[in-house]
Amino acid sequence: MSEAKIRRPRAETPKGFRDYFGAEVTERRAMLDAITQVYHRYGFDPLETSAVETVESLGKFLPDVDRPNDGVFAWQDEDADWLALRYDLTAPLARVAAQFRNDLPSPYRRYAMGPVWRNEKPGPGRFRQFYQCDADTVGAPSVAADAEICMMLADALDAVGMQGNYIIKVNNRKVLNGVMEVAGVLDPTDPERFSAERGIVLRAIDKMDRLGDDGVRALLGEGRKDDSGDFTKGAGLSAEQAEVVMGFTSAKGDTGAETVKRLRALIASSTIGAEGVQELETIAELLAAQGYGLDRIVIDPGVVRGLGYYTGPVFEAELTFEILDEKGRKRQFGSVAGGGRYDDLVKRFTGQSVPATGISIGVDRLLAALRAKGRSSADTAGPVVVTVMDRDRMADYMGMVAELRNAGIRAEVYLGNPKNFGNQLKYADKRNSPVAVIQGGNEAEQGTVILKDLILGAQIAQNATLEEWKDRPAQVEIPRADLVARVRRMLDSQTQDRP
Amino acid sequence: MSEAKIRRPRAETPKGFRDYFGAEVTERRAMLDAITQVYHRYGFDPLETSAVETVESLGKFLPDVDRPNDGVFAWQDEDADWLALRYDLTAPLARVAAQFRNDLPSPYRRYAMGPVWRNEKPGPGRFRQFYQCDADTVGAPSVAADAEICMMLADALDAVGMQGNYIIKVNNRKVLNGVMEVAGVLDPTDPERFSAERGIVLRAIDKMDRLGDDGVRALLGEGRKDDSGDFTKGAGLSAEQAEVVMGFTSAKGDTGAETVKRLRALIASSTIGAEGVQELETIAELLAAQGYGLDRIVIDPGVVRGLGYYTGPVFEAELTFEILDEKGRKRQFGSVAGGGRYDDLVKRFTGQSVPATGISIGVDRLLAALRAKGRSSADTAGPVVVTVMDRDRMADYMGMVAELRNAGIRAEVYLGNPKNFGNQLKYADKRNSPVAVIQGGNEAEQGTVILKDLILGAQIAQNATLEEWKDRPAQVEIPRADLVARVRRMLDSQTQDRP
Repeated sequence: MSEAKIRRPRAETPKGFRDYFGAEVTERRAMLDAITQVYHRYGFDPLETSAVETVESLGKFLPDVDRPNDGVFAWQDEDADWLALRYDLTAPLARVAAQFRNDLPSPYRRYAMGPVWRNEKPGPGRFRQFYQCDADTVGAPSVAADAEICMMLADALDAVGMQGNYIIKVNNRKVLNGVMEVAGVLDPTDPERFSAERGIVLRAIDKMDRLGDDGVRALLGEGRKDDSGDFTKGAGLSAEQAEVVMGFTSAKGDTGAETVKRLRALIASSTIGAEGVQELETIAELLAAQGYGLDRIVIDPGVVRGLGYYTGPVFEAELTFEILDEKGRKRQFGSVAGGGRYDDLVKRFTGQSVPATGISIGVDRLLAALRAKGRSSADTAGPVVVTVMDRDRMADYMGMVAELRNAGIRAEVYLGNPKNFGNQLKYADKRNSPVAVIQGGNEAEQGTVILKDLILGAQIAQNATLEEWKDRPAQVEIPRADLVARVRRMLDSQTQDRP
Repeated sequence: MSEAKIRRPRAETPKGFRDYFGAEVTERRAMLDAITQVYHRYGFDPLETSAVETVESLGKFLPDVDRPNDGVFAWQDEDADWLALRYDLTAPLARVAAQFRNDLPSPYRRYAMGPVWRNEKPGPGRFRQFYQCDADTVGAPSVAADAEICMMLADALDAVGMQGNYIIKVNNRKVLNGVMEVAGVLDPTDPERFSAERGIVLRAIDKMDRLGDDGVRALLGEGRKDDSGDFTKGAGLSAEQAEVVMGFTSAKGDTGAETVKRLRALIASSTIGAEGVQELETIAELLAAQGYGLDRIVIDPGVVRGLGYYTGPVFEAELTFEILDEKGRKRQFGSVAGGGRYDDLVKRFTGQSVPATGISIGVDRLLAALRAKGRSSADTAGPVVVTVMDRDRMADYMGMVAELRNAGIRAEVYLGNPKNFGNQLKYADKRNSPVAVIQGGNEAEQGTVILKDLILGAQIAQNATLEEWKDRPAQVEIPRADLVARVRRMLDSQTQDRP
């Protein structure tokens, strides 16, 4: 094959994947560090499992399917085992909790942070690799563990800078089961019965915001015809039964105690329901005793997301400030974390039931929220750039950056071809450099350097007539010996200018 | 299928993979944070690429192989593209440098840290997923960039606590090429010629430690018969030619300048060799000017590892302290980082040559070294455990841990079944807890709590007769109000006891 015919590979991130550059990495790291510190103080230990698990252990697949790639990235090992990339951090925790059950402390409090992979159709903002940040307590049956998870989540959201901007809602699957029982669509002696009806009820409750009371009532009863004329079959509840469900969704009172009282009145006749209400009451008491007010964590029976999956208390953290959606309409930022209590985490491996409760933070969403509020704590400033006027004096320029670095100032020397000085300033601009240092032959002879305030320079360029810049030159010639002190002063004045 | 017949999945980490628990995660994080700070100060920006790349972009495989899994984990996407897990952090950098060449600053200084995957036979200490930590400068032709990489590596090793325990050796591929040319096994007009001989020469030099001068001379000449009688064919050099190679390996002088002088004398007749010597000289001068002494970075022509792969300067960092190997023999810890200058990083994508230089730190090896020297900076102490004597007073116990946490002390309440108090202390032991807090009904009534010094308790248990423990009781009853102050005092006294 002739050289000309060799096809070059495409330099492309695989479809649905992305790269993270500079500040994106730094800001996420800073956020996860802040969360880590909270989790650490709560006694949680880090766990980092491998990205790869056996498909058997992930356990979502049928052994007789030739290619088990439904939802996960999977491949067959040389010795015929199927391996796959983890799709969340809970499945690996289940495997670890079973595999190391004799060595791990019990209860086992662990947190995990890292990428997970989903073999799904990518879309706008939907990637096939993304970060999760989980904390779980395995082996603690008491709802004190659930209360602790809620408090820790609140502290973590405070720590990343979301004070006053979130609400953590707590509900309980058992209460919902009680509601279902009283409403006549759950038979404790035959749990499978009425499962279709329960599904309709759950979906109806979840649509409360959109359909309103009447719409939900219709879906709970015979069914509902929407504006387009399409008919959705209802759950077939009587008006009285539907009232129980409606009472449940609106049971939220001004205090946890009041909510609990209303719920108890609704579903006193259901054993499982009463148990769930008791759990909510205990959680509310523990939270109140530790000073977590209703402005941070509330019992809210309106939360049904995840109720199908979890077995006891359920948590959801929502950010309460408004952002503009893609169409410019105001809307609440919404959910950034969710979790709850789940049984049978370890059971599929060992046959033994192990209670577990936990929370998962949507890392990318929370980071987007921090950016929206300008609360990212990461240091994302560019480096001071020492330009090269005379390539034979590279050692001098490197000496300058070393001095700056040793004083804790991020700094670098220009390492491209120094011939075109304009390119050096363009480079400094691309790096978001706050200050450029310049020393040509004249300055070197006189023992001086020139400092260029690139932030101020950009501002002056934008507002050429502005009076206030008059007295502050964007460029100064200073003694070489004052380099560190004067650069620091320039950086400080830039920080003060920032809004 | 009856319930009894359902085969349970095995709870096993896939073969060749491992999980990292608690301190292992924390210590690695602390080490990488220290390195990150140095890289950041040097103006390097983080880059986090996805774990998954197209096989085409990784570029190690033939398009007509049905299953390109040689060395990497690969699988076929729905739309027939082959995807694979990255096997290092350099290939993704090459892809990014090509894909984003119009947006990235040039030169582009970036660091990357994260797992890479190799589909290789696992062995003791050899895993199929492991961490790498790389820093590279793309687009800087000047050897000032190579010198900077060396200085930054030295600073990073200092930052993690290896001051005085490492040496960074610098060599140059071009010098080796000059040696090959003078020794008659490199023809600049036909680079492919003599490649077999050059391979033999390289391997011979690399065996200097084991075979000694005579053994290497034999391999450079006709060949060598080892103790078992096996004959290894030599490179066929004349005695005079072999002398050039031997002179090269022993050219290291007491100063960089002396080494450079000897090298220059050896290979003055080779253009490429002279160029390489000039580069080494410039690097040595830049390092000396910045005060990086020969105790930290040294020109060492004896380093040949990686010389085949790189195109210019080559670096290798070795730890100089001794450890005991698996047979109890003393040996130097050895290499923890390596790198150098390489061309054609981006060329396979764009056709344009882009110069690049960089370093890769072996994260697991460096971490093992820190542990061996007891220099890990991570806080790996267990939490203070507040025990539960009366489950109805959970709110009180949670109040205690909240107070401790708010004072910055890692603390947790026992969340298992509190019935058996012995289990609670066993749990505290498993958590490496320094202090247990106990408050039963009597203490609650009297407004006191009991603190149990678990570290001291363990020491007393080991040395029951020791006089010095007499005056320091392992258990004290204190006013509840003094909880935080007295726990802190106990933690402080434990820190002082530590060797």
